[in-house]
Amino acid sequence: MAPPSGEVEVESISPYGIARTTVDKKPLSAEEIKKFDAYFRACMYLCLGMLYLRENALLKEPLKKEHLKARLLGHWGSDAGQAFTYLHMNRLIKKYDLNALFVSGPGHGAPAVLSNAYLEGTYSEVYPDKAEDEEGMRKFFKQFSFPGGIGSHATPETPGSIHEGGELGYSISHAFGTVFDNPDLITLTMVGDGEAETGPLATAWHSTKFLNPITDGAVLPVLHLNGYKINNPTILARISHKELEALFVGYGWTPYFVEGSDLESMHQAMAGTLEHCVVEIRKYQNEARESGKAVRPRWPMIVLRSPKGWTGPRKVDDKLLEGFWRAHQIPLPNVASNPEHLQLLESWMRSYKPEEVFDKEGKLIPELKELVPLGNARMSANPVGNGGILRKPLDMPDFRNYAFQNIEAGVSSLPSMANMAKLLRDVVANNMHNFRLFGPDETESNKLGEVYKAGKKVWMGENFEEDADGGNLATEGRVMEMLSEHTVEGWLEGYILSGRHGLLNSYEPFIHVIDSMVNQHCKWIEKCNEV
Amino acid sequence: MAPPSGEVEVESISPYGIARTTVDKKPLSAEEIKKFDAYFRACMYLCLGMLYLRENALLKEPLKKEHLKARLLGHWGSDAGQAFTYLHMNRLIKKYDLNALFVSGPGHGAPAVLSNAYLEGTYSEVYPDKAEDEEGMRKFFKQFSFPGGIGSHATPETPGSIHEGGELGYSISHAFGTVFDNPDLITLTMVGDGEAETGPLATAWHSTKFLNPITDGAVLPVLHLNGYKINNPTILARISHKELEALFVGYGWTPYFVEGSDLESMHQAMAGTLEHCVVEIRKYQNEARESGKAVRPRWPMIVLRSPKGWTGPRKVDDKLLEGFWRAHQIPLPNVASNPEHLQLLESWMRSYKPEEVFDKEGKLIPELKELVPLGNARMSANPVGNGGILRKPLDMPDFRNYAFQNIEAGVSSLPSMANMAKLLRDVVANNMHNFRLFGPDETESNKLGEVYKAGKKVWMGENFEEDADGGNLATEGRVMEMLSEHTVEGWLEGYILSGRHGLLNSYEPFIHVIDSMVNQHCKWIEKCNEV
Repeated sequence: MAPPSGEVEVESISPYGIARTTVDKKPLSAEEIKKFDAYFRACMYLCLGMLYLRENALLKEPLKKEHLKARLLGHWGSDAGQAFTYLHMNRLIKKYDLNALFVSGPGHGAPAVLSNAYLEGTYSEVYPDKAEDEEGMRKFFKQFSFPGGIGSHATPETPGSIHEGGELGYSISHAFGTVFDNPDLITLTMVGDGEAETGPLATAWHSTKFLNPITDGAVLPVLHLNGYKINNPTILARISHKELEALFVGYGWTPYFVEGSDLESMHQAMAGTLEHCVVEIRKYQNEARESGKAVRPRWPMIVLRSPKGWTGPRKVDDKLLEGFWRAHQIPLPNVASNPEHLQLLESWMRSYKPEEVFDKEGKLIPELKELVPLGNARMSANPVGNGGILRKPLDMPDFRNYAFQNIEAGVSSLPSMANMAKLLRDVVANNMHNFRLFGPDETESNKLGEVYKAGKKVWMGENFEEDADGGNLATEGRVMEMLSEHTVEGWLEGYILSGRHGLLNSYEPFIHVIDSMVNQHCKWIEKCNEV
Repeated sequence: MAPPSGEVEVESISPYGIARTTVDKKPLSAEEIKKFDAYFRACMYLCLGMLYLRENALLKEPLKKEHLKARLLGHWGSDAGQAFTYLHMNRLIKKYDLNALFVSGPGHGAPAVLSNAYLEGTYSEVYPDKAEDEEGMRKFFKQFSFPGGIGSHATPETPGSIHEGGELGYSISHAFGTVFDNPDLITLTMVGDGEAETGPLATAWHSTKFLNPITDGAVLPVLHLNGYKINNPTILARISHKELEALFVGYGWTPYFVEGSDLESMHQAMAGTLEHCVVEIRKYQNEARESGKAVRPRWPMIVLRSPKGWTGPRKVDDKLLEGFWRAHQIPLPNVASNPEHLQLLESWMRSYKPEEVFDKEGKLIPELKELVPLGNARMSANPVGNGGILRKPLDMPDFRNYAFQNIEAGVSSLPSMANMAKLLRDVVANNMHNFRLFGPDETESNKLGEVYKAGKKVWMGENFEEDADGGNLATEGRVMEMLSEHTVEGWLEGYILSGRHGLLNSYEPFIHVIDSMVNQHCKWIEKCNEV
């Protein structure tokens, strides 16, 4: 994928090189690699188009500054790694008939998701004016991070997205929320190595202690070691391999590594590793479902180490770009004023060979369209990503039946929470696959313990004999308690956004811990109502 | 430590048993074990006294319900493990002349800290009416969690405490804040296994990537696997030993284990392990300081697994107490109405043999007082724990010198942040050991990059050659950036509360992530001003 050399110096030798991988399988034929490579180029082309263009979408003319957006806003850094992972999941969706969702954790990685939604046709189905043709592509490019258009996050307007990735840290907990009570779903979750430094993300890895392999689906995290945040290296990209591996073993996962930049070997490595993980997930689920024994597996996950801004120019004006923090946002910010940079951008965009992957009308060529899953199997079209259309109303008992009788004003002293708990118990009982109660270890002390009669607390950690003494723990239950307000709120949000119902209880003095999270969620819901 | 058997059934066989430990050293003589055991009993007696008594402090009379507080409020769960760790640190403070501070992370573990402060005499020095005599002890007991008295957290009134432990998750980041630019300080930090589930705590373990062994001190964490939260087991107590060990290796620490309940072997195990850790810390520091090479060591830490409510009755009315979540708060809540329980409480308190450890006047016997470090070497009296008395004013340049010249109203377009950065640069330069700038990777994009001229960004992760290209990273610096608002705010709070100055910069939309943290900190400061 070296950009063509020209007068402007473009160095494409990555420090990463040939893929290193844990899974030594090469499932792709030469023909398939060629196709995946072409599809990947189409994605990358669309990503750059979104960042830069408002005219000349297919580069049928030489690139002029009049074709550029006046103000360049957007993020290139994680697009390649995310799009790369997404398209390899498509192969497995088709091969294994998977029910899969994509959660994009890294901040501002929206172009990766949008380009895939567009190539899959979903985008044009939802927004017919962004059709799969030249004019549609032009509008698709122009609207991105543009006044009156869409944001540079995976906002609610993005088909298949339940996660915005603005305030970082919630991708894993959101993903777990989607798979609870969704036994067939695999939610592929890209985790940025920036967001991985946040507290909420750092503890959310423990969510596996609350996931039942029989009744729930699976989360397949891909930690994207992109190397850099805005202006700093990331912690997880700068610790030893031994520490990194130990960390995820410690969190209870089985980490597989895919590391490098050479595209051919990286395609093989990712195809083999992702397939290995999916097969492992299905094996664990089948074992549990056939035996009826719910034990916690050490679920697989992937660590993808690829250069930040992968496939971009390695150096510009003798300064590092690809594989460095300068690739975080707009990689060449001065294209409007610097003709050399404009030319560099053009050769870079042409290096993806748009004329090979799109036909003259701007439509993805049929040979590549074949790589796309059909209908709702497309991650961008999975109804789980649009929970509103799946939601069934809660079966609510009549609250009047729970009123206290014979209250004597000023005399009766009756426990309101404990009484409310009876209503809640029956809400649980009536909605056993559609409602969960979340909280940070305070259900009992908030006097709601009555709910355990309908659904116990989910616990997939080790069990001790003494748990029988009032522990109310079970592998299958309706109450979700972990001492992380962030995690339980994230689970709740993911559960609700994938079409179910839930309630979170917490003490008044500590609920403020998740103030900003709840604000973000409400803004999301508000926007969903507009959409 | 079996409570005496009586008519009430008391089962003291712990599921934990003889200590298992990583460090196979038995540094204590039989005589020393006896003394430490007696000191520990004194602590435990004081803890129970705080929870229950307002009269009859030394149990000179048989216990009657008139001696009890009318409303019992407080927490027993983590007191034993914390007090146990504290007193073993005292041995090392004396032996190695350490400068040490104690941070109590678990929620509501204040009795452990208060009892030690009282035995060390600091409490009576600060609050002379709580003297080291029978009447002082009575007042000391009565004030605890009592109207007009003190709270059940390690509130600002607590000598030696910079950390409240109400809103959980900040013990490790607070501790790191205290040791930055305090090269001789070791902050011993108890981390509750409940708080360890919070996001802020889960990522704060990575703070070692920002700690310089030459110019900073060290944090020695003791993760207290107490086993239970309020009503649930804790995650870290219910994963395999392999996972637990891997997790902390992954976080970059060297974990040592001390596990059990048998007091004699636990005293040996803790004494040997804690000493090993202190020696290792000093070794890493000396190597770095002598060679001038600041590399990140895999700092030692301890995992202490002891029963929740350790040394309490194992069962009461055939329900588990010691080693179970029922030991979290008041272990015997019905002592006022249940004569059997009152009797059980009395035998339990007497099992600590107050008459052996306190003299007739209520003072700790001289033989045990010898175990206490002297003066400011006492962790309860370390001036670092009372930063206000150490604080030196910031050397501030005159801000007027940084004003823009020749501003033309409505015409001039000048960068205010970049200009402010010059002032900030000089604040840094004038206060190189007394001021740090904190933020989640936004110093550059907030246009404050000018400060790097005075102090670069601290980075103890791996270095790549490309960092030379504008990375502004250094092992010794003044800017602290990690993509965790919680961690950088926690560092800042610890840095300020130990007597220094700092500033945190962050984007407006994401600063809300730490709303509640900042509220807690301001409440702490407000209370400090009252004290």
